[in-house]
Amino acid sequence: MVGLPARGKTYLAQKICRYFKWQGVSARVFNVGDYRRQNYGAAQPHSFFDPTNPEGQRQRNDVAKLALEDLIQWLEKPDSSVAVYDATNSTRDRREWIVQRCSQSTVPIETIFIESICEDASIILENIKAVKLSSPDYANEQDPDRAARDFQKRIHHYEVQYETISDEDDLTYVKLINVGSLVVLNHIQGYLQSRVVYYLMNVHITPRCIFFSRHGESMYNVSGKIGGDAVLSPRGEEYSSALPKLVRDNLKDQPMTVWTSTLRRTIQTAQELNYPKLQWKALDELDAGLCDGMTYEEIEKKYPEDYANRDKDKFTYRYRGGESYHDVVLRLEPIIMELERQSNILIIGHQAVLRCILGYFMNLSIQDIPYLRIPLHTLIKLTPRAYGCDEERFRVKIDAVDTHRPKPGATDGPEKDGEVPVLPSMAE
Amino acid sequence: MVGLPARGKTYLAQKICRYFKWQGVSARVFNVGDYRRQNYGAAQPHSFFDPTNPEGQRQRNDVAKLALEDLIQWLEKPDSSVAVYDATNSTRDRREWIVQRCSQSTVPIETIFIESICEDASIILENIKAVKLSSPDYANEQDPDRAARDFQKRIHHYEVQYETISDEDDLTYVKLINVGSLVVLNHIQGYLQSRVVYYLMNVHITPRCIFFSRHGESMYNVSGKIGGDAVLSPRGEEYSSALPKLVRDNLKDQPMTVWTSTLRRTIQTAQELNYPKLQWKALDELDAGLCDGMTYEEIEKKYPEDYANRDKDKFTYRYRGGESYHDVVLRLEPIIMELERQSNILIIGHQAVLRCILGYFMNLSIQDIPYLRIPLHTLIKLTPRAYGCDEERFRVKIDAVDTHRPKPGATDGPEKDGEVPVLPSMAE
Repeated sequence: MVGLPARGKTYLAQKICRYFKWQGVSARVFNVGDYRRQNYGAAQPHSFFDPTNPEGQRQRNDVAKLALEDLIQWLEKPDSSVAVYDATNSTRDRREWIVQRCSQSTVPIETIFIESICEDASIILENIKAVKLSSPDYANEQDPDRAARDFQKRIHHYEVQYETISDEDDLTYVKLINVGSLVVLNHIQGYLQSRVVYYLMNVHITPRCIFFSRHGESMYNVSGKIGGDAVLSPRGEEYSSALPKLVRDNLKDQPMTVWTSTLRRTIQTAQELNYPKLQWKALDELDAGLCDGMTYEEIEKKYPEDYANRDKDKFTYRYRGGESYHDVVLRLEPIIMELERQSNILIIGHQAVLRCILGYFMNLSIQDIPYLRIPLHTLIKLTPRAYGCDEERFRVKIDAVDTHRPKPGATDGPEKDGEVPVLPSMAE
Repeated sequence: MVGLPARGKTYLAQKICRYFKWQGVSARVFNVGDYRRQNYGAAQPHSFFDPTNPEGQRQRNDVAKLALEDLIQWLEKPDSSVAVYDATNSTRDRREWIVQRCSQSTVPIETIFIESICEDASIILENIKAVKLSSPDYANEQDPDRAARDFQKRIHHYEVQYETISDEDDLTYVKLINVGSLVVLNHIQGYLQSRVVYYLMNVHITPRCIFFSRHGESMYNVSGKIGGDAVLSPRGEEYSSALPKLVRDNLKDQPMTVWTSTLRRTIQTAQELNYPKLQWKALDELDAGLCDGMTYEEIEKKYPEDYANRDKDKFTYRYRGGESYHDVVLRLEPIIMELERQSNILIIGHQAVLRCILGYFMNLSIQDIPYLRIPLHTLIKLTPRAYGCDEERFRVKIDAVDTHRPKPGATDGPEKDGEVPVLPSMAE
């Protein structure tokens, strides 16, 4: 990353990392600020960052080096793919040093510089308020105004030395100017690089909400069968009628688009919602192949080995003639890209598909995604924040069967009525 | 499009158009050169393009206007989506005029300028030789050197007036400099715009070949069943053993990667090929849903209405619980993007999937894609050229069943042994 403080570097670094990890590409952020806090303490006054302060300068070089060495060591491990070096890297010398050091690694490392430039003072101030004042750097500072003033002085120390990327023709770089309104790409090549760039082009910071709901209870849910294209049960129909008010209460008068799969149970659930609608084949439920239309008991009886294998590694287990969770993640990638681009969206989906999408937004490990609790007759509201999402859940008082199967060995009993399950990084 | 002559504008315009049409988005190129040839004849000397020639200037303005009026009229039709205005548009005034005129349309038109800048004289000369000398403009010129000199003088007339896009901050634009080694994006937003840009980032002009083959004959082919995950028949195994030599004869010693689906018949067909291999779930055969494992006769008996509907509109017909050709095209989009980026590739695939991929490269209409002939035991070699692909087919002398079902009413009998079917734009 390249850029002055409060230009969204950490925001982008985290998002890139989350995007790759979700697709099964190992990725990790190395934040130099974390190394500084760990080695020299969090509560440093702005003078620590003054380029004319030799002691601060030395200590900051030390932690930059420590972080880069850890990063290279990590990339040299066999399964590592994408490391993000999250620091200001705001001088040409510093960037040369990074390229130089990476070229000496025992594995080939492609470097790509992502520079974020922002000239809009209001966006910078918003960022300082949203992220910096609650950072450990200001944990001991009671007065937010004093903290903001100190941070602006810190920025100023960097501005004195800052050299934007220019005439560095050999570097591979992306320059994002004013939150992507102008983008400059140099020497972008290869699969991962072009994925990063396309992703960065689609990310925005305009406030919005994303709603999720499974379809209402279906006749297959009632009989314990998986897959198929069943219609709603009478209780599922009740949920479909209750949904419009629940959505309106939470969305107010804002515009929204409803996305469903091409299966009847989601289309039926959306039928009373008075918003523009879109059907996506990519939102169809995980394809259970030969097991489509069977109950778990029937699968266990007919394919006992498959059943056992699925419990061993549910994320990569692929149903005979069907899909794995990993397959679903790959086909959902265009959905994630479109969700990043869009404003308010409500997705009426299916258990496995919504697990994958929520797994992306909540930064779950791919091992946890197949066990995420997403009960029927529950509306989930995600609100993207600086470094993650707030999650709220609204349970409608219409009974439905519990389709969750806990991880074998986990002490995770059947869900109790009215209990709202808690996600790792849940807001409430 | 924006750029001097011979900067690949028409190449990019055609590719963008083909990419969208393949996905079912209506797109059309309006080439001002075509209007010039139609209205004032093809054989114009370079002096026609001299900006100090008032008559040439007037006539060129006329055809630019005619083309833009037709373009706007076309975009005003209900189902039109993407129009490409293929001309030099090399002055600021001309670009202002385009934006201005589009803003007066009865439908909202978003304009995006794609400027191609090339400073590499060898690429420009290559382009002149590959495309311009065989253009109708030089049909009457016997001497290629004289034609090249005339064309270079024509370029010079444009250079005198040329204004690259700069300080036109309100424009939405992409600048591609030296075949995409530097890319500048301004105000790119919206789905279609970001798709165009990502696509342009992945296109390259390095020579290479793409090979295609269906899997060897499978046990399901022999029994007339569709779908499934059958292994190869003895004749299919023979094909698998014959393939390595056939590929080597055509590829020579160049590097290549083999892509297969995740189904056994393609993996088995690739097993004796000594190249790096990749399995793609997205290359799996069209999912026939409830009809998987049935013969066409069984489908006709069990689902007579579906069977009839499929023949009516085979591209959009979706099997119950399965996929349509259109669904397959949408899930193949990442494959196409990756094929654009890659060098030599051999895809061992399935009938419907290869029809869709070849349909993209051969610019077939979506109505024709489901009826494209791709027989078993045949290697297809595509060589991308300036404005399309050359196609060669190599039939291996190992018998196989014919799985082609002609369009109802078409006089398209069963394929004869040894006859190489002819594609619209086939080379041999």
